[in-house]
Amino acid sequence: MQSSGPRPVRAPRGTTLNTRGWQQEAALRMLMNNLDPEVAEHPDKLVVYGGTGKAARDWPSFDAITRTLGTLKADETLLVQSGRPVGVMTTHEWAPRVLLANSNLVGDWATWPEFRRLERLGLTMYGQMTAGSWIYIGTQGILQGTYETFAAVAAKRFGGSLAGTITLTAGLGGMGGAQPLAVTMNGGVAICVDCDPRSIDRRIEHRYLDVRAADLDEALRLAYEARDQRRPLSIGVEANAAEAVPDLLARGAEIDIVTDQTSAHDPLAYLPIGVAFEDMAAEAAKDPEGFTTRARESMARHVEAMVGFQDAGAEVFDYGNSIRGEAQLAGYGRAFDFPGFVPAYIRPLFCEGKGPFRWAALSGDPADIAATDRAILELFPDNEPLARWIRMAGERVHFQGLPARICWLGYGERDKAGERFNDMVASGEIQAPIVIGRDHLDCGSVASPYRETEAMLDGSDAIADWPLLNAMVNVASGASWVSIHHGGGVGIGRSIHAGQVTVADGTALAGEKIRRVLTNDPGMGVIRHVDAGYDHATEVAEERGVRIPMREGEEA
Amino acid sequence: MQSSGPRPVRAPRGTTLNTRGWQQEAALRMLMNNLDPEVAEHPDKLVVYGGTGKAARDWPSFDAITRTLGTLKADETLLVQSGRPVGVMTTHEWAPRVLLANSNLVGDWATWPEFRRLERLGLTMYGQMTAGSWIYIGTQGILQGTYETFAAVAAKRFGGSLAGTITLTAGLGGMGGAQPLAVTMNGGVAICVDCDPRSIDRRIEHRYLDVRAADLDEALRLAYEARDQRRPLSIGVEANAAEAVPDLLARGAEIDIVTDQTSAHDPLAYLPIGVAFEDMAAEAAKDPEGFTTRARESMARHVEAMVGFQDAGAEVFDYGNSIRGEAQLAGYGRAFDFPGFVPAYIRPLFCEGKGPFRWAALSGDPADIAATDRAILELFPDNEPLARWIRMAGERVHFQGLPARICWLGYGERDKAGERFNDMVASGEIQAPIVIGRDHLDCGSVASPYRETEAMLDGSDAIADWPLLNAMVNVASGASWVSIHHGGGVGIGRSIHAGQVTVADGTALAGEKIRRVLTNDPGMGVIRHVDAGYDHATEVAEERGVRIPMREGEEA
Ligand SMILES: NC(=O)c1ccc[n+]([C@@H]2O[C@H](COP(=O)([O-])OP(=O)(O)OC[C@H]3O[C@@H](n4cnc5c(N)ncnc54)[C@H](O)[C@@H]3O)[C@@H](O)[C@H]2O)c1
Ligand SMILES: NC(=O)c1ccc[n+]([C@@H]2O[C@H](COP(=O)([O-])OP(=O)(O)OC[C@H]3O[C@@H](n4cnc5c(N)ncnc54)[C@H](O)[C@@H]3O)[C@@H](O)[C@H]2O)c1
Repeated sequence: MQSSGPRPVRAPRGTTLNTRGWQQEAALRMLMNNLDPEVAEHPDKLVVYGGTGKAARDWPSFDAITRTLGTLKADETLLVQSGRPVGVMTTHEWAPRVLLANSNLVGDWATWPEFRRLERLGLTMYGQMTAGSWIYIGTQGILQGTYETFAAVAAKRFGGSLAGTITLTAGLGGMGGAQPLAVTMNGGVAICVDCDPRSIDRRIEHRYLDVRAADLDEALRLAYEARDQRRPLSIGVEANAAEAVPDLLARGAEIDIVTDQTSAHDPLAYLPIGVAFEDMAAEAAKDPEGFTTRARESMARHVEAMVGFQDAGAEVFDYGNSIRGEAQLAGYGRAFDFPGFVPAYIRPLFCEGKGPFRWAALSGDPADIAATDRAILELFPDNEPLARWIRMAGERVHFQGLPARICWLGYGERDKAGERFNDMVASGEIQAPIVIGRDHLDCGSVASPYRETEAMLDGSDAIADWPLLNAMVNVASGASWVSIHHGGGVGIGRSIHAGQVTVADGTALAGEKIRRVLTNDPGMGVIRHVDAGYDHATEVAEERGVRIPMREGEEA
Repeated sequence: MQSSGPRPVRAPRGTTLNTRGWQQEAALRMLMNNLDPEVAEHPDKLVVYGGTGKAARDWPSFDAITRTLGTLKADETLLVQSGRPVGVMTTHEWAPRVLLANSNLVGDWATWPEFRRLERLGLTMYGQMTAGSWIYIGTQGILQGTYETFAAVAAKRFGGSLAGTITLTAGLGGMGGAQPLAVTMNGGVAICVDCDPRSIDRRIEHRYLDVRAADLDEALRLAYEARDQRRPLSIGVEANAAEAVPDLLARGAEIDIVTDQTSAHDPLAYLPIGVAFEDMAAEAAKDPEGFTTRARESMARHVEAMVGFQDAGAEVFDYGNSIRGEAQLAGYGRAFDFPGFVPAYIRPLFCEGKGPFRWAALSGDPADIAATDRAILELFPDNEPLARWIRMAGERVHFQGLPARICWLGYGERDKAGERFNDMVASGEIQAPIVIGRDHLDCGSVASPYRETEAMLDGSDAIADWPLLNAMVNVASGASWVSIHHGGGVGIGRSIHAGQVTVADGTALAGEKIRRVLTNDPGMGVIRHVDAGYDHATEVAEERGVRIPMREGEEA
């Protein structure tokens, strides 16, 4: 018998099967890839990303899953309950090979303390979004999501490019560190404030940030110069954002876009004015309540300055860190004058069925991803932001684990890409099958009133039928594995979401499945937004032939 | 265009299709049958049963569903979000024709007030269990569930029959009124106390209750007589249970089984000692708090007497009305000395994959159900309680809407019955297809910590992955329609559950689907209870070949 403790895990590469078919092989490799030390944050603890987002409940569960996948037949389905394999059932060829449900709790028990209690009893695990559903691909996902947001800002206000604009933001941590590169990839200039010099150094080292300015004066000078030459440039500057942002406003700095990704969601992690960065941890520990009050007051100054930039004509948005809410708690009355990023930029994309389409090459060969990159450029020649992303990602994104790519595609696009990939596998242009999936953060796959479904037009933010229908329709369409999770992104009690992964193994059957899954899955985004009253979604549905039963009545 | 207001609805009968196939036809007829005035409580409001459990959001939604089913192809799937049709997608022949998600909310929003608010906005509906999933068959379900509970009591303590025993209970309302007939169907004698004379009269009228006794003396005399002759008999007696039960205990009445279905869950609906029944409504309205205190004190006396009967050797259980909790609130310390009915009797059945299997004849002809009744008797000749139920149901159950039958079958039994029905449709022995479904209250389809998953051995009461896996595996196995609901039975925030319905249309494909669905669906119950540590479930899994991946490791 295998040892059942922690060990280094890395997905097999190449074209030799360790299972009875590519659908099963794909599940095996992607589970293992999620735990690759290049990919996972704490592989020994089976933690992939996002706090404690795990790929399997414990090592014995991991062993049992891989063992079961090893013999699973093409008409069998493995059931996984919060990272533990609980059954194998006879289904059929069109059915998924794996079905997963992670972290789900009955509503009245859906709290962090209860979840942690059940987790300690060994009864559940936190699946996050793509950890427990075996389709995490490293930090490329964050980079591309941030790129897409800034591309949407560019499309909305600046004619499709950020060239000639300056973005002011703060926070260069795990998520926020993607901002400078996302801005420059969109052609713009970014000034990024962080109070931690190591955050700045790390981003420069990883080539996400271009240069470091000594102070705000130098930052502004460099920024204006680059902007005037329409040259992309990202500039890090060490400062407290609660001082720097008001300061820049007071000087009349020429800023076009303002946002923020400091860790404002946790007041103990936001540096208040008057505290030296070196003393932050000690001060927070010594007097958490006093520190919280001071942090919130500083956030109020920070947000007040953001509103000031908006009044002066800048494009301003909250980037999902709750800074508006905290500023409001400190008594600042106009905190919600600027919008969150989802209603402002992402929802129009969701109306088109757009979302984080991603794929990985089971061969392990970067050449296979390069081939798919070329295919995407060919398939969508008129989509300039997409082309820019694909080209720059090819140059700048360092693969973690199996080579992979992500880009946002919409209804009528994903199926095209998927079918093309399948044809390329069939013809041998690609060496081994391609796994096609997405984040749970997608157009029709999540109910999350503090993020993806914040401020829906009809007030349906908390209605959770949609992700469940999404999961069921993916099972019914031929996906290779399908998952339903609770609590990803925003935490236990706050979201329900679903994922699907479909394997392009070059067979005709896979082609049929891909056509259905990659039409119906983004189709859920279109119908969800039609139902909520978004005109843009209705236009998309009409143009692209998405059926809306309630409207067919109107027309009859 | 059709009118879109309330109207009488009745399912079409016979063999002429109104749709493109029997799978679609079955969905159409069962939706309509749920709204048949014989079946539904408030058909004009689309309310089927259980408070406000509805079959469709509103009349325009009903029209759009029926219109869409009318043209739905054999490789298309209709999506229904809380009673409103929101999409039609191309899937394949093995996929369900309808997928439904009803009443689901994100955890932090899963409360009655928020649900009612969203319902008023027209964004959701309450699906209960079989209302929104189109497989309610009238009060036969309650009768059979109660019959099954008393059969389980008989099996546990009295050698498989209640002949020669006396059951004491109270409450002859909507649910509780099934108790006398369920006891006599199991061969026993029942004394049923109710303070409302109309409840007694109504049950006698409907032949659920045999006789009325003038007082406790007469009730006991009649009961002893019948018991000694091993003759089934049910006796109603008008009294306050909080007085009658202690009184009978004090007299040393020879009672074998004690339970209760007064409306104890709501203290304003339980008659306190010292209040005349006629004054109850007025007193409760005048001083709700004082009334509550008095009702709880009376419940404490009631429960104390139940514990007294248990001390004296009787079989005593709580029948899901929270009377133990209320007695405890009144300060009675031994309230939880007797168990709830699920852990005591139902869970062992769940370990065998048993649950409320039901079917309806689309022909509308009772002869078709009679034929299936005979088939069940033939298929399971050694199951005496089952045979007794089927025979007595054939005699005593009055059909509501389409003729239907319910009985509890387990893993390895449901598929046999389903395949037989399909063969009978194929051979013409049955005139039109049979629709096979079940309640969401089943062995592996519900997470409900106050009822079906109360006091699980491993503490996994609130883990909601299981119903979601159940729904997905049913979609993956070929069910005709599949539903995921929230809040059925015990209310919003307290349960998540799934249902499936599969149509036996006599084709070979339907046979394949039935074999898988009716194996995998009860299989979920077996694996759910194996995972929670029930030895009986593990035995069943081993005997009947249910695969448990974590145990296959142990054996390797
Ligand atoms: N948009 C989204 O969907 C999304 C996704 C993930 C996270 N978030 C949110 O974004 C925020 C950042 O996430 P992260 O993972 O990068 O966090 P992190 O903790 O890794 O980084 C936060 C950074 O902010 C800096 N900082 C703190 N206080 C500051 C101040 N007063 N002035 C300047 N810099 C300060 C810290 O030094 C640190 O480098 C979090 O609040 C997170 O919840 C949003
Ligand atoms: N076991 C289950 O799964 C399950 C299912 C549904 C309902 N229930 C519970 O069962 C209970 C009964 O449900 P129902 O639908 O029949 O309720 P109901 O309101 O229709 O009937 C309750 C009956 O109790 C009688 N009653 C009230 N106080 C009394 C007293 N002090 N003495 C004698 N009789 C008294 C009333 O006159 C009435 O006839 C409820 O608490 C309900 O929540 C349990």
